[in-house]
Amino acid sequence: MSGLARRIDDAALIDQHVHGCWLTAGDRARFENALNEANTGPLAEFDSGFDSQLGFAIRAHCAPVLGLPRHAAAEEYWERRSRYSEIELARLFLSSAGVSDWLVDTGVGGDVADVAELEALSGNRAREIVRLEEVAEQAAQAPGDYAAAFGEILHRRAAAAVGTKSILAYRGGFDGDLTEPSAAEVARAAGRWRDRGGVRLDDRVLLRFGLHQGLRLGLPLQLHVGFGDRDCDLHKANPLLLLDFLRQTDTPIVLLHCYPYEREAGYLAQAFNHVYVDGGLSINHLGARGPAFIARLLEMAPFRKILYSSDGFGPAELHFLGARLWRNGIHRVLRGFVDTGDWSEADALRVVDLIARVNATRVYRLGAR
Amino acid sequence: MSGLARRIDDAALIDQHVHGCWLTAGDRARFENALNEANTGPLAEFDSGFDSQLGFAIRAHCAPVLGLPRHAAAEEYWERRSRYSEIELARLFLSSAGVSDWLVDTGVGGDVADVAELEALSGNRAREIVRLEEVAEQAAQAPGDYAAAFGEILHRRAAAAVGTKSILAYRGGFDGDLTEPSAAEVARAAGRWRDRGGVRLDDRVLLRFGLHQGLRLGLPLQLHVGFGDRDCDLHKANPLLLLDFLRQTDTPIVLLHCYPYEREAGYLAQAFNHVYVDGGLSINHLGARGPAFIARLLEMAPFRKILYSSDGFGPAELHFLGARLWRNGIHRVLRGFVDTGDWSEADALRVVDLIARVNATRVYRLGAR
Amino acid sequence: MSGLARRIDDAALIDQHVHGCWLTAGDRARFENALNEANTGPLAEFDSGFDSQLGFAIRAHCAPVLGLPRHAAAEEYWERRSRYSEIELARLFLSSAGVSDWLVDTGVGGDVADVAELEALSGNRAREIVRLEEVAEQAAQAPGDYAAAFGEILHRRAAAAVGTKSILAYRGGFDGDLTEPSAAEVARAAGRWRDRGGVRLDDRVLLRFGLHQGLRLGLPLQLHVGFGDRDCDLHKANPLLLLDFLRQTDTPIVLLHCYPYEREAGYLAQAFNHVYVDGGLSINHLGARGPAFIARLLEMAPFRKILYSSDGFGPAELHFLGARLWRNGIHRVLRGFVDTGDWSEADALRVVDLIARVNATRVYRLGAR
Repeated sequence: MSGLARRIDDAALIDQHVHGCWLTAGDRARFENALNEANTGPLAEFDSGFDSQLGFAIRAHCAPVLGLPRHAAAEEYWERRSRYSEIELARLFLSSAGVSDWLVDTGVGGDVADVAELEALSGNRAREIVRLEEVAEQAAQAPGDYAAAFGEILHRRAAAAVGTKSILAYRGGFDGDLTEPSAAEVARAAGRWRDRGGVRLDDRVLLRFGLHQGLRLGLPLQLHVGFGDRDCDLHKANPLLLLDFLRQTDTPIVLLHCYPYEREAGYLAQAFNHVYVDGGLSINHLGARGPAFIARLLEMAPFRKILYSSDGFGPAELHFLGARLWRNGIHRVLRGFVDTGDWSEADALRVVDLIARVNATRVYRLGAR
Repeated sequence: MSGLARRIDDAALIDQHVHGCWLTAGDRARFENALNEANTGPLAEFDSGFDSQLGFAIRAHCAPVLGLPRHAAAEEYWERRSRYSEIELARLFLSSAGVSDWLVDTGVGGDVADVAELEALSGNRAREIVRLEEVAEQAAQAPGDYAAAFGEILHRRAAAAVGTKSILAYRGGFDGDLTEPSAAEVARAAGRWRDRGGVRLDDRVLLRFGLHQGLRLGLPLQLHVGFGDRDCDLHKANPLLLLDFLRQTDTPIVLLHCYPYEREAGYLAQAFNHVYVDGGLSINHLGARGPAFIARLLEMAPFRKILYSSDGFGPAELHFLGARLWRNGIHRVLRGFVDTGDWSEADALRVVDLIARVNATRVYRLGAR
Repeated sequence: MSGLARRIDDAALIDQHVHGCWLTAGDRARFENALNEANTGPLAEFDSGFDSQLGFAIRAHCAPVLGLPRHAAAEEYWERRSRYSEIELARLFLSSAGVSDWLVDTGVGGDVADVAELEALSGNRAREIVRLEEVAEQAAQAPGDYAAAFGEILHRRAAAAVGTKSILAYRGGFDGDLTEPSAAEVARAAGRWRDRGGVRLDDRVLLRFGLHQGLRLGLPLQLHVGFGDRDCDLHKANPLLLLDFLRQTDTPIVLLHCYPYEREAGYLAQAFNHVYVDGGLSINHLGARGPAFIARLLEMAPFRKILYSSDGFGPAELHFLGARLWRNGIHRVLRGFVDTGDWSEADALRVVDLIARVNATRVYRLGAR
């Protein structure tokens, strides 16, 4: 094993964007649907979540964690997985991921682990990322002035958090005005929204208000970019549509996932001192194609502006697999750079450290905590 | 030869989108122009259709079929080709393609083989794909109510067909409203179009009408996506612009060609149970770069949602070369996945079968015929 | 060393788009900022221009020119570089580039070498490319009718030049009307602009006027496309937005840089006899990822439509490194095509010659000079 391979395998990762894993049992359909990110309903009868890059990657890399041979058949994998409770699976996969810190976006619903449970199940540290749209929905239900309630909730929750997150990509996308609305506009929009029940925020004025409140905190703001489920109009989640927004602030902004716009995102990370990129979710879903994607992330983005995350949600396999595939992919890519003489081995070792934890430690000020 | 290489070479392909090959002699300019897809006029005097990936691929892979060494010079290739009639070339190249079924879009004009002639020349089965814009042009010339005529022609032609096809990409592109127009709108638009002569459909109302009539049949609808000639505004042929249209139906929709939007197309195939992707035309034109493209088709698209086609039209070389390049490319890509341990050899064999024929057999219900 | 490697190393390149190198001393911040193209201000304190693909490539490939080992540390590199004057660095790096002709866009300000100085420092030929927006700014300051002054300056400057250049991408981008404005529109717009001082042209009417005046000259028109600094809205620099403009002329148009739209640009080079592509700036900034980019440039673009440039500006390293990385990249890519049997070695040798100098010699009529 080369020094580079060892360094990559030994790196204790900061998984800077992740969600809870399942805590309670579910059927095979739940599991297979969780392997397809983009589809919002059940898979077609002729289809299987296993027949995808992610499905193949689970059979290749997760099967051995459960004591099966690599590439165990789908049937076999499901049968073996079913012998464990989700809690047991979480313990197994989380502790096998080689992660030291989980930064947890708690804004997704469902019966999944919270920050404290992730800590307990993994044996690692976990910190919260506060989802701005969830704060908005809490403010809509609170009594009194919306903006004041939003500010109060945000500050209270942010006190223990390391960053904020927005899913603007899912609520109309990035195009259009993203400046800060006036107090009067916010009050009017909040009134209308509360009249409609104040659930599932999609009002642009309030989305913009939330974003700018998040920026004002000074904590890094994570943005879902590109690939996700089909509620998101993918072409409206192109990060280049954020240019004017990015020009308005110098609070750190982290572009997550980014597929198929990872080259555009890398450009933004070069163009703006406060912009960061992370392949997130895409790496799990790309499976054997992960290295090609990771290589593109290493194009225009300066190396001090690239982060790691798994975006694991649901099956604990994803929290583990993200790390496994990132290690495999970065090794393939950097090994190539070194073998052609373009990089020195020392260059490669240092970039591994930067992406694995140095950059995230700096951006989220984890060292000071 | 490995088991994977053998399986790929032996696979009897379903070429799910193809046109007729030439039947009558032409000069060298006709041939060289046919090697450039995007240009609509004659090539510049300083240029040669041979000096492109497709041209190099023809010299590499088609020359041996004509008894020449690989990489025979362009001059030599043309000289040798000229010794054969187009009928003889068709017999040679079609029968060498390793295809079992041709699904033929008959909507392109010109002196090319029809469905029966393709069957006879190749010795394989051939089935028709009905081009909706051609049905529209026939309905414009028919007496009486346009919508009724369209429906009558479509049902008559579709009775023996396995799918429909639209070239909306060439008639204004995908952006804008793609909902079904009202009967009154259709009648008004048809009246205006018939007054203008009823040739070359580019009226959006009637294009939308045709699409929805096609969907209602329930047969798979093929859509030209991305790369084609310059009559198509390439940025308006981005399949993400189809999102709202795709949300309106569950009839199978096959995205053809897709370059340079193959990753976006793969995403749609993951997002919608009824959406399929196929690299089509792009593979011939990418020549030595085909493997990189095929690899990207294998990113987000579930493996049961990927199809094969050559889009061959004109020179019979293209019907053969599409298959040859697909085999070379898929072998390169899957061999790589297996060699790195990401896939098992059995995984690779199964995915070859899916793309080569299993998926197409299911989508077009070819088994039942 | 293979015949292909030798041919590539020996090729005397025409660097068809370049600027002056520095002539006077500067500090380390100037140097590191010059390694980040997209950022317009100083780098963040936590960042370093060396920690990027370009920075790593300078340490790998430029260090030996200064007598250092490959991959010398950033500190060491800067220390060694500081022992030389910029004039000495220019002599070293320009003469090591293996370039025979520099086509120099003189429209960038700053204390850099002009055409004659580049000739003297390199020992090669240099020719001018006239930037149309600079002509406009000169015409704004000239007495009398704007259009007449523009025409007079353009013709005078173009007499000794080999092409023109536009940075429309930086002045609002490509979308919107790009037809030729009327004389009256030009006069009105020029009056308004002169009233505002006539500096930094961003009036669309006058930009369009300049473009069409440039086209009318018949000299090749270079267009900045894609990647550049953040004053450019990258999504408005997508070359597909030029489709209608390209349809209006048959004057040669050269698409420069093109990242991340190099596949779109290659398509345009196939679609239009008068359109050319060049990776320019992108290759330096991609460093170890250059081969992947160069490979994509060799997809849809016919081989007689591809050019080479470094876009060097500022540090003389860039004039050298562009050539070094292009040689490394094209070798990697073509070697691959030959090794898989897709191309013959003779094919590869010929394509090297085409891109290195044959195409540029024809387009810019350099042979006749």
